[in-house]
Amino acid sequence: MPHKNNVKAVVLASNKKDELLANAQTLMISTSSEDGSDIEWGVAPFVRLNGMFYIYVSELGAHVRAILKGHSVLFSIIEDESVARNIWARIRLKFQGKLTKIERGNEQFIQVCKNFSEVHGPVMSLIKDFSDFHLIEIEPVKGTVVTGFGSAFNLSGINLELTERLSSNG
Amino acid sequence: MPHKNNVKAVVLASNKKDELLANAQTLMISTSSEDGSDIEWGVAPFVRLNGMFYIYVSELGAHVRAILKGHSVLFSIIEDESVARNIWARIRLKFQGKLTKIERGNEQFIQVCKNFSEVHGPVMSLIKDFSDFHLIEIEPVKGTVVTGFGSAFNLSGINLELTERLSSNG
Repeated sequence: MPHKNNVKAVVLASNKKDELLANAQTLMISTSSEDGSDIEWGVAPFVRLNGMFYIYVSELGAHVRAILKGHSVLFSIIEDESVARNIWARIRLKFQGKLTKIERGNEQFIQVCKNFSEVHGPVMSLIKDFSDFHLIEIEPVKGTVVTGFGSAFNLSGINLELTERLSSNG
Repeated sequence: MPHKNNVKAVVLASNKKDELLANAQTLMISTSSEDGSDIEWGVAPFVRLNGMFYIYVSELGAHVRAILKGHSVLFSIIEDESVARNIWARIRLKFQGKLTKIERGNEQFIQVCKNFSEVHGPVMSLIKDFSDFHLIEIEPVKGTVVTGFGSAFNLSGINLELTERLSSNG
């Protein structure tokens, strides 16, 4: 197990985090149900611009209704099972953020939709005008990343930068 | 979009659900934090025996402490991004279940640990005796599966069988 202050281990973990973020296409969303008694979960393709994550999601999903109401939410990203070096230690991160709904039709809405089309293909042009869908901007605030056995770090700020090392896999 | 009562569409969805369950190696865990104010999330390799899911997880994870305390929990399984036919419609399921802690050292504990070693490799022999780890049995009760655009179904019982078709992607 690398030492807590091992610079190489920190750089390696930071690189793995950047690689995960660069390769991932979808964000998972965990939140509480509308009445707060149960847990909800969903997944959505995302684009990332200047550190901000954007998802375009339908309020037909209970998890979407919950986050639009301001319920606590935790986002997570995980490498595919098929690329995990060890299934017990899939590289993954989770974070909390500030959510803002981008109003349909304004300049930013149009720009981000265009970006979605470029990154995630023609579906966006089909669903762009569906009024049950909402464009949500997520500014990352804090989180944690696990890059292997005994390698977990806190993350901070819009760029999800590694701060302190954790003694457990968060 | 297939008709609500299209038998072929139901069989296709059921087969996709079975395939997802047969191929997946890990279960994702969404729950609330210990004080109930935040959301927690984690992932764990699972084995499945007679319909029951088993996970072997460390209480160093906040999500594990929460589920050991009996907080609401939602489990989810999702196909890898790399095999998704369309990134907007990854095949996925989520379910609630009844949780039982299997006591260390009894016959079932030994049997399931052996099964973990067979399915998920040599890590289990390293962590089997770690006292912060707990073996948890999950009996599926109800859930939902999404197998494509406009194809979402409720699931019921230990075998997570398709029941009614949903009008939205839950």
